[in-house]
Amino acid sequence: MKIGYFGPPGTFTEEAALTISGEHLALNTINEVLMAVKNGQVDCGVVPIENSIEGSVGVTLDLLTHDYDLKIRREIILPISHNLLINPDAEIEDIKVIYSHSQALSQCRKFTEEMDVEVHSATSTSKAAELIRGNNTYAAIGTRRAAELLNLKIKSQNIQDYKNNLTRFVVISQKDHEKTGNDKTSLVFSLHEDRPGGLYKILGIFAEENINLTKIESRPSKEKLGRYRFYIDFEGHRKDDLIRNILNNIKPKVRSLKIIGSYPKEGDD
Amino acid sequence: MKIGYFGPPGTFTEEAALTISGEHLALNTINEVLMAVKNGQVDCGVVPIENSIEGSVGVTLDLLTHDYDLKIRREIILPISHNLLINPDAEIEDIKVIYSHSQALSQCRKFTEEMDVEVHSATSTSKAAELIRGNNTYAAIGTRRAAELLNLKIKSQNIQDYKNNLTRFVVISQKDHEKTGNDKTSLVFSLHEDRPGGLYKILGIFAEENINLTKIESRPSKEKLGRYRFYIDFEGHRKDDLIRNILNNIKPKVRSLKIIGSYPKEGDD
Repeated sequence: MKIGYFGPPGTFTEEAALTISGEHLALNTINEVLMAVKNGQVDCGVVPIENSIEGSVGVTLDLLTHDYDLKIRREIILPISHNLLINPDAEIEDIKVIYSHSQALSQCRKFTEEMDVEVHSATSTSKAAELIRGNNTYAAIGTRRAAELLNLKIKSQNIQDYKNNLTRFVVISQKDHEKTGNDKTSLVFSLHEDRPGGLYKILGIFAEENINLTKIESRPSKEKLGRYRFYIDFEGHRKDDLIRNILNNIKPKVRSLKIIGSYPKEGDD
Repeated sequence: MKIGYFGPPGTFTEEAALTISGEHLALNTINEVLMAVKNGQVDCGVVPIENSIEGSVGVTLDLLTHDYDLKIRREIILPISHNLLINPDAEIEDIKVIYSHSQALSQCRKFTEEMDVEVHSATSTSKAAELIRGNNTYAAIGTRRAAELLNLKIKSQNIQDYKNNLTRFVVISQKDHEKTGNDKTSLVFSLHEDRPGGLYKILGIFAEENINLTKIESRPSKEKLGRYRFYIDFEGHRKDDLIRNILNNIKPKVRSLKIIGSYPKEGDD
């Protein structure tokens, strides 16, 4: 089993990928991971899709919607704890600039604002950790593993603004998962008209059948302000009779509809 | 009239702020702008709230929801065009790193991926432009105005992935706007239970009265995955009788409800 993941090593995505056994391949962008799955270079790819604080990872949703016909095969939910990393001989008073991935910076905004330093974003938390080595005026926000790998000092732990910080990763493959009886399905759709009265009707179809929606997100459709694409996760497998009926019922009411996969539900409560 | 804005000069937010006449004050963060409005240091503040490609500006929504009791008094919608800026004597082949604000980088993702360079984010497009001066291996994504101010060369224009790119700015004040007869209201609410059946009921209240929703966005409530806060913009003023009734009808059905302001609707079609 060959597993591609949004690298480099030392990121939370690597941690998620390591929960699957096999050969692990770090790739540079989320796009490269999906490309590798499409080309068969890897059997599956691990990418982040949603964070409990920051919300969806837009790039992942956009690529799955517009650019690839790949499926979610599994979800992996990990707690996220951010650390302030500095050089072994640096002091906190020396720090002028903090580097990290933009989502990590957003998640630690209050912490960095209090430190009153410049923040620069890097392509990953672990690239940020690499980048600060040897410069005592730089700090990085990153993982414990990155500190170990790069011989940096953990100056502060758990520095994210909200302590209960979970990230949901997805395992992307050419096919989704068979029914297990405890499944979820991810769907994206857009509406015929601009009026969210249309959304009301779609939600009604799920409400009538007592189907629990575990996620609802809207994202701009990229055409104009006020037009949205909706991402919904719900309980059930696309091959369940009930879900099949619901999907058939929705199809004529939407402008576009794409199933991004059915897969076993992982507990996050 | 004293107008604070999320600076520095040379950003699109400055362009939006300049549509209001008075004395303009560039501030370093969105938080500082709202703080200046709260303290009375400025009469109003201009900050970005939504982009047609990237979606909501999370920081602005979060601060208006959790940290300040300020109101939207006006909206300003501007078309956004991104440019690749380089030093006057630099060549495109020399470029190794591109700096810009993280939203601008997201909006030009395909362009930067094709150039196959490193991307670093800066606190604003115009900070990025400042940062590259004198280094021919650096480029910035920024405004035409920044190029003029800093004597940089515009190497490519309109480099964003989606050409129809609009940003909506809001003017924040201690009070919202009086009724004009062509108004919008912005609302944030959270639901009692995790089930989006609750959202279905709320949308039904608007649908029954034929109130047009001009925006709907969900954001994670920061407590756990799968719990959301909903941002809705709709046509009408909170002092209209119809809207007043709707708000009274919603209140007992939600866990929390906050009106972020009623203000004149600007055309964006």
